[in-house]
Amino acid sequence: MNKNFKLTIEYDGGRYHGWQRQPNAPTIQEYIETALNKMTDDNITLTGSGRTDAGVHAFGQTANFLCDTRLNSEAFHNGLNSLLPDDIVIINCERVSDDFHARFNSKSKIYQYRILNQNLPTAINRQYAWFIKRKLNLSSMKHASEHLIGSHDFKAFEGTGSPRAHAIRNITKAELTAQDYYVYFNIEADGFLRYMVRNIIGTLAEVGLGKTTVEDFKQILASKDRSRAGATAPPHGLFLVEVKY
Amino acid sequence: MNKNFKLTIEYDGGRYHGWQRQPNAPTIQEYIETALNKMTDDNITLTGSGRTDAGVHAFGQTANFLCDTRLNSEAFHNGLNSLLPDDIVIINCERVSDDFHARFNSKSKIYQYRILNQNLPTAINRQYAWFIKRKLNLSSMKHASEHLIGSHDFKAFEGTGSPRAHAIRNITKAELTAQDYYVYFNIEADGFLRYMVRNIIGTLAEVGLGKTTVEDFKQILASKDRSRAGATAPPHGLFLVEVKY
Repeated sequence: MNKNFKLTIEYDGGRYHGWQRQPNAPTIQEYIETALNKMTDDNITLTGSGRTDAGVHAFGQTANFLCDTRLNSEAFHNGLNSLLPDDIVIINCERVSDDFHARFNSKSKIYQYRILNQNLPTAINRQYAWFIKRKLNLSSMKHASEHLIGSHDFKAFEGTGSPRAHAIRNITKAELTAQDYYVYFNIEADGFLRYMVRNIIGTLAEVGLGKTTVEDFKQILASKDRSRAGATAPPHGLFLVEVKY
Repeated sequence: MNKNFKLTIEYDGGRYHGWQRQPNAPTIQEYIETALNKMTDDNITLTGSGRTDAGVHAFGQTANFLCDTRLNSEAFHNGLNSLLPDDIVIINCERVSDDFHARFNSKSKIYQYRILNQNLPTAINRQYAWFIKRKLNLSSMKHASEHLIGSHDFKAFEGTGSPRAHAIRNITKAELTAQDYYVYFNIEADGFLRYMVRNIIGTLAEVGLGKTTVEDFKQILASKDRSRAGATAPPHGLFLVEVKY
C-alpha cells in the first residue's frame, strides 16, 4: 500500500538548472529522485510545489511522493541527507494523508529577493544577492511595491511566451526592508507566474534608480504589457522561503 | 621611479589553493599578479601580509607591490576589480610610503572562525561555516579559550613539520560568541603559526563536545605537544578579518 511523504527542502540553486527534471542538465528534482530510488529500488516521481528556475535558491521548497515501502519518514530524512550533495538538504520529512498534493494543496508561497546595494561587490556571499552599485531610492521602491498588493492580472511581469489568457494572482504581502547594505524584498501570493518575482524586482530596481516613476510602475502593472516592464533580475538573489498549506 | 601600493582584499577561498603562488594550482596571489601584469605590462611580485591556506577566506587580507607606473591607486583599484574573478574583490587600494611592507610592518591580525551548531547542515552558506551536529558546551569553550590570552609558545597548535625552535605568539583577544545557531570565535594576535587557528578550534570543539576538559586544554597548550591537541578544523570556517599596521 502506498504511503505519502512530504519533504521540505533547502537548496543552493547555483549549480542546478532549476527544480524540474530535464534531459542533460542537473536539476534538484532529479538528484532527490535518484536518491529516493537508490533507497527504495523503486521508480519514484517527486511532485514539487512548483518549479524554481535555474540558479534560484530555496529555504523551504516542498514536494511529495508516494511509495509502497516499510521505511518511515525518519529513515527517508536521514537516508536522503546522506545520499544528497551538500547543496541540497532535506529539512523535514513527514508522512501525510494520501490525498496531499504538494502543488494543488498549496495555499500561498513566500519568496525573498536580496539586493546588495553598495559601492563594491563582495566576494563572500556574492552567490546570494544581486549587486547594484548605484544608490537605490528605497522610499520610491516601497511606494511602488504597495501597488502590487491585491488581485491583479500580472501579465506585465510574466515571462514571455507563456500562453495563458490571463494571469491573475493575489498578492497578500510585498515588503521592502533594508539592513546594512542589503535590501530584502519579501513577497507572498497564492501563486506566482514564471519569472514574476524577478520581473517585478527588475522593474522595482528601475524605480529605485529613478529610471521609472512610481506612477509608471502602477501603469506598467495595469498595462499587462511585458515589454513595458524592466529586465528580469538575476536568479541568484531569489529564494523560495516557504510554501504554506 | 617605483611607487608602492597597498591592497586590501576580500576573497572566497573555496576555489583556491590558498594565497601563495604555486605551480599547477590556482592561488589568490597568482590571480592578482596576473591582473596587475596585464595592467602594467610589467612583472610584479605581490607581497602578502602572510599566507592563508587552501579554502580559507578573507575579508581583509593585505598586500603591497612596487611598480614604476603612471597609474594611480584608483586606476589600480578599478582595473583590478574588472579583471579579477568575482570571488576576489579589491576592497581598497592606496599609495603608501616606499618602506611599507605588508608582512614585516603588520602589528596584529584578526581571524574569525565560524561553526554552525545545529541538528541539520544548511545548503545556503554551507561554504562559510564548519557544521557540528552535536550540541557544543559554549561555556566550557569560553573558559578554555581564556587560557589562550597572553604570550605563549603555541607549538601544540602549530602544523606539524614546522622546523622552528620556538613558536611564541602574543594573543590579545580570544572571544567566543553565539548568535542563532552560529558560534563565532574571534582571535587577535601579533602573528599566527601555520594551522594555528584551525588547530585551536579543533581542540576547542573537543572541549565543547566534552571529550577534553578545560584543564586538559590548558595542559595541552603548556605541553607544546602537537600530538595532544585536537584535529585541524576544516578551512572553510576560517576568515582572515583584518591585518593591523
